[in-house]
Amino acid sequence: MTSELIRVNEIFGPTIQGEGALIGQPTVFVRTGGCDYRCTWCDTLHAVDSAYRDEWCPMTPEAILMQIEILSGGRPLMVSLSGGNPAIQPLGDLIDLGRGEGYRFALETQGSLAKDWFSRLDVLTLSPKPPSSGMATDWQKLAECVEAAGPDTQTVLKVVVFDEADYAYARDVAERYPGLSCYLQPGNHTPPQAETSDSSIDMTGILERMRWLVDRVTKDQWYAATVLPQLHTMLWGNLRGV
Amino acid sequence: MTSELIRVNEIFGPTIQGEGALIGQPTVFVRTGGCDYRCTWCDTLHAVDSAYRDEWCPMTPEAILMQIEILSGGRPLMVSLSGGNPAIQPLGDLIDLGRGEGYRFALETQGSLAKDWFSRLDVLTLSPKPPSSGMATDWQKLAECVEAAGPDTQTVLKVVVFDEADYAYARDVAERYPGLSCYLQPGNHTPPQAETSDSSIDMTGILERMRWLVDRVTKDQWYAATVLPQLHTMLWGNLRGV
Repeated sequence: MTSELIRVNEIFGPTIQGEGALIGQPTVFVRTGGCDYRCTWCDTLHAVDSAYRDEWCPMTPEAILMQIEILSGGRPLMVSLSGGNPAIQPLGDLIDLGRGEGYRFALETQGSLAKDWFSRLDVLTLSPKPPSSGMATDWQKLAECVEAAGPDTQTVLKVVVFDEADYAYARDVAERYPGLSCYLQPGNHTPPQAETSDSSIDMTGILERMRWLVDRVTKDQWYAATVLPQLHTMLWGNLRGV
Repeated sequence: MTSELIRVNEIFGPTIQGEGALIGQPTVFVRTGGCDYRCTWCDTLHAVDSAYRDEWCPMTPEAILMQIEILSGGRPLMVSLSGGNPAIQPLGDLIDLGRGEGYRFALETQGSLAKDWFSRLDVLTLSPKPPSSGMATDWQKLAECVEAAGPDTQTVLKVVVFDEADYAYARDVAERYPGLSCYLQPGNHTPPQAETSDSSIDMTGILERMRWLVDRVTKDQWYAATVLPQLHTMLWGNLRGV
């Protein structure tokens, strides 16, 4: 099999998934390098900014799966594909190879690019970016992502919320897709800088914004929403590799 | 309809479910009074110790549903039945009444008492108590609970883990029911006392034990487990009513 190479920023785990639909579940992360977005509050600049391109290793699907198997001890588990925007990488062959060995695959993307191999994922998290990101949503592209995933993939929505405008955006997204579960996540106001190893976070602020979001949702009687913090940030701060 | 009265310790919400399978989902809690267990680290003594029996209000299913409807603004959501051990209360009529209005019901119990109305729940969380609780598990009763819930109720396991003996117990429980999802939850070493309004918690300790449990599970390659903290304890400490 000849495959295109995948640009990999880091492969780590197993640890637990810290957010969204699979929160608490053991997983190995494959973080790809490169992104078509530049969110103001990006928390993975090392996988986004092309200044770090030298750190992104071109790998074959076979080499990535070998690394996953080493980390997991050869025992299949959920593999989380993230980025950057992993949808810009040719991940179809990796998914097929891994599934053949019993691994499952989840992918998170902003929904700016649809791929036919979304339908071979177990879980697709579409995380369109709210106004505070500075990015504009292409609703047609988002619809194409939902369409590409199809009926055999569990597709869910996740929206990061920093403020009221983001909250209104989240409601809009959820109303467009009443059949999809919608996860709300308070934003991290102190994202890591790519150049520093300082992993400290503002725990008081995180808890405060989480309480605000719970209050906002329940006052609004938006009972179909699920509100979850980034557990990994609470447990390990902005430390990488956990 | 003539119904038996239900002993209610508190009804509150909507807030989010802080633990287990429904973590992050908006819910109203109905906490019943009375329990057949006396766990050493009980965090709801006010709903367990019969010294507080005067605080448990006998209510009809209709009165409870009315209170749920007031709190939820009449918009159906998930109702979480907890205790104490809610399985000792006659909750079947409440569930039927509420479902008729569109409400859904989840119940958490240690699994010491099976009821036929378990099959009318949406979610049944069986939380058998590990060695550190000082309680002994009646495996036959636990099996009867799984049986009573049947195929139409989503039944999950949740085990609180304080130490290695508890962890071994959790593995045993999960192996008995490979078809059920198993949630692991680090224990709260500083549970609230019934007599005090002090809601402070040991956040550093909670995070430390959560990291230990994640490490324990991943080192053990127990990838089918889900590890989640008590979010409400992190957000609101031991405060009641949230």
